Amino acid sequence: MREVAILGVGMHPFGRYLDKSLTDLAHVAIWNALKDANVSAKDVQVAYLGNSIGGLITGQEGIRAQTVLGPNGFGGIPMVNVENACASASTAFRGVWLEIASGLYDMGLAVGVEKMHLEDKARTISALISVSQLELSKLGMQFVGEGAMRCKRYMRRYGATKEDLALVAVKNSYNGSLNPYAFHRKPYTHEEILKSPLMADPLHLFMTSSIADGAAAAILCAKETLKRYETKHPITVAGCALSSGRCRESDPLDTDEESTITLTAKVAYRQAGMEPKDIDVAEVHDAMSPIELISTEDLGFCGKGEAVQYLKKGKTQISGDIPINTSGGLCARGHPVGATGIAQIAEIVWQLRGEAGPRQVEDAKVGMCEDSGGVLFNGDNAAFTNIILKR
Amino acid sequence: MREVAILGVGMHPFGRYLDKSLTDLAHVAIWNALKDANVSAKDVQVAYLGNSIGGLITGQEGIRAQTVLGPNGFGGIPMVNVENACASASTAFRGVWLEIASGLYDMGLAVGVEKMHLEDKARTISALISVSQLELSKLGMQFVGEGAMRCKRYMRRYGATKEDLALVAVKNSYNGSLNPYAFHRKPYTHEEILKSPLMADPLHLFMTSSIADGAAAAILCAKETLKRYETKHPITVAGCALSSGRCRESDPLDTDEESTITLTAKVAYRQAGMEPKDIDVAEVHDAMSPIELISTEDLGFCGKGEAVQYLKKGKTQISGDIPINTSGGLCARGHPVGATGIAQIAEIVWQLRGEAGPRQVEDAKVGMCEDSGGVLFNGDNAAFTNIILKR
Repeated sequence: MREVAILGVGMHPFGRYLDKSLTDLAHVAIWNALKDANVSAKDVQVAYLGNSIGGLITGQEGIRAQTVLGPNGFGGIPMVNVENACASASTAFRGVWLEIASGLYDMGLAVGVEKMHLEDKARTISALISVSQLELSKLGMQFVGEGAMRCKRYMRRYGATKEDLALVAVKNSYNGSLNPYAFHRKPYTHEEILKSPLMADPLHLFMTSSIADGAAAAILCAKETLKRYETKHPITVAGCALSSGRCRESDPLDTDEESTITLTAKVAYRQAGMEPKDIDVAEVHDAMSPIELISTEDLGFCGKGEAVQYLKKGKTQISGDIPINTSGGLCARGHPVGATGIAQIAEIVWQLRGEAGPRQVEDAKVGMCEDSGGVLFNGDNAAFTNIILKR
Repeated sequence: MREVAILGVGMHPFGRYLDKSLTDLAHVAIWNALKDANVSAKDVQVAYLGNSIGGLITGQEGIRAQTVLGPNGFGGIPMVNVENACASASTAFRGVWLEIASGLYDMGLAVGVEKMHLEDKARTISALISVSQLELSKLGMQFVGEGAMRCKRYMRRYGATKEDLALVAVKNSYNGSLNPYAFHRKPYTHEEILKSPLMADPLHLFMTSSIADGAAAAILCAKETLKRYETKHPITVAGCALSSGRCRESDPLDTDEESTITLTAKVAYRQAGMEPKDIDVAEVHDAMSPIELISTEDLGFCGKGEAVQYLKKGKTQISGDIPINTSGGLCARGHPVGATGIAQIAEIVWQLRGEAGPRQVEDAKVGMCEDSGGVLFNGDNAAFTNIILKR
C-alpha cells in the first residue's frame, strides 16, 4: 500500500447556526481545506462524507454526500456516504485514505458535517438517541447515562473521586479557550464545573459535550505525488485503524481484559511501527470529559489507574509530556457528531505543522486521533477509529 | 492492487415479511453466503453494510452494521455503514473489494439489507422519497414520476411507444417466474401489463419495481489466498466502478452527451480490459422496467435508439446474445433498496457458475451489474456503480 499524506484541512467553527444547512456548513470546511491544500475542486478524484443524524434532522437520507458536495462543486466522481455514529468522520477519512493507499486514486476529500441545533431541541435529542443500539435507548439509556456509568466503574475500581474527574474539564475548557474553532471558549474553574447542573452523577453539565453544528474537511493525496503540489507541510498518515464493538460479558473496567480502544490502538501502533511513547500529542474522544482518563490509560500513555495522578502532575496539559485534547476536546469544541473525527485530525495537523498558535505543543512530531461512536447493548461502543499522523 | 474473488453469495428471498427485522433478514443472507463460501464468521476480517432507509423505518441510525452484524456473530472487526440510495449494497460490495484489493485484509463480508413493508405504507413511501434530493421531493417528484419523465424523453427522441416499453416487463416477469428469490413470480402478458393500473404515464403498475423486504450478502477474498479454501467456483471481480451524478444543464436523452451510466461503465470496462461485446449476461437497474432499454444502450450493448428492436428480436432474453435481468430485475425480484445491488451480484455469480437453474444463460463467462441510486435535482441519478465479474 502507498503512503498517504494530508495536504490540507479546514473547518467551519463549531457552534450554533440555526440558519445554516449541512451544505452551508460543509462549504466553509471544504473550501478552507482546498485553500489550505492549494488545490482546486477539480483535482479531487474521490470523496467520502461522514454524517450521523442528518437524515432525521434534515429529512435527506441516502445521498447526503451528493446533495452536500454537488452544490460545492463536486460531481461525477466516486462518492460514498458513511456512518459510524461519533466515528463517522474518521471512518470517512479512513475511506479516502484507503482509496489512495490502494493506488486507485491520487487525491481525495473527506468531509464530516453535522447539523444539530434546531428550534425544537427534542428532535435533536431523539435523533441522538437513535445512534445507540435501539434496545438500549428503549431502556431510557443515552450517552450521558452510559458515560456516567462508565465513570462510576472507574471511580469504584481506582478510588477516583468526582473532584478528580472534574479536573479534566478544567484543563480542556482552558485549551478550548485558545481555539478559535471551539464552540465554548470560556475556561472554567474546578468550582464552576462542580457547581454546573448535575446531569447524571458524577457528570455535571460542563463535563459533557454539547450538541453543535459544524463541519471539518481534509484533502488527502498519495505521498508519491506530492511533488506535483505546492504545499506547505504535508502530514503523513502513519496508522489508520477501524474496529467495532465486541460481544462481551463484562466491562473491561471490571476485569483485566483489554478494551476495544486498546485493541484498535494496537492496530494503528503496529501500522505506524510506533508505541505510546512515540506520540507527542493526542485528541481523544471525550464525549464526557472524564472518559479522557480511561482513554489515556487504554491508549498506553500511562498505567491503569494512574490517569488522575498523571493529569494532576500536568502531564496531559499543553506543556506536558503527552498533551491531550489541546483543541479543548468534545466538551469545549462542541460535538457535531459526524464532524468530530475530522476536527480531531485538523487539530493534530495544525499541531504537527506548528500552526496551533497559543495552544501549540512544542516540537510535536507525531499525533494520534482516537474516536469511539455509538453504544451497543452490552455497553461497548459500536465503532472505533485510531489514526496516527506524523510530520 | 490485488485481484479479488467472490467466494460465496447468499440471499434472503425478497418479499413481504412484516415480522422480520433487519437482523433477521440479514441473518439468512449472511449465513447462506458463509455456507456457500464454506467459511465461518470468524474468517471474516472486515464488513460493510449497505442500507438506505432503515433509519427512518426502524429508528436505528448510525450503527446498523454493528447492530445487525453483532447478533449474527461478528464483532471487533472494521465495520462500515454505507449509504448510496439504490446503490447502497453495490457501494458496500465495492468497499469490501477495496479493503481486500488494497492488501489490507484477505477476507470480507458485504451485506445489503432493507426492511420496507410496514402496516403503515405511508411511512415507507415517505422514507423512499427521502433518498432523492429533498428539493426535488418537495416538488412532489418521486421515483415513479422521474422514471416516467425519462421514459417520455426516450419515446420522444426515438419514436418508441408505450406498447414497446411494456415489452421489457413481459421478458422480466417471465425471468422472475424462474427465480426462487423473486418476490413476484407470475409471468405477465403484454395485455396484463398494459391493463395494470396506470402509475405515471407511460408507466403501469407492472412496469414499476415494488417495495420489498430482503437481504443479500457476498463473501470476498484475495484471489492469491484462494488455495486456503475449499470453494467450488470462485468468481473474479474484473471491474468495480463507482461514480456520482453530475452538474448538467440537459438530459443526455435530449443531447448526444454521454450519460453517467456510460461514463461509469467505461471505468469498469477499462479496469476489466473489456468492451461491451465481452459481456455475456447483465443485471441492470430497472427500477422502472423500460429504463432497462436506456441502460442497454448506455452500457454499449446496442446502438442509441436500437434497444426496442434489440429486445423485440429476443437479443436480451435468456437465450439471446446478451441476456439482461435474468433474475427478473427489480420489478419481478422486488426492490428492497439497500439490498438490490448485492442481489444483482448474486445472480451474476450463479450465472457464471452455471447454477442459475431454469434461467441459466449458456456458457456465461463474464457478467455485469449496473446500479443507479437516488435522483438529484437536475434529474441525474446520485450514485452509480458498475461491477464486472468473470469466472
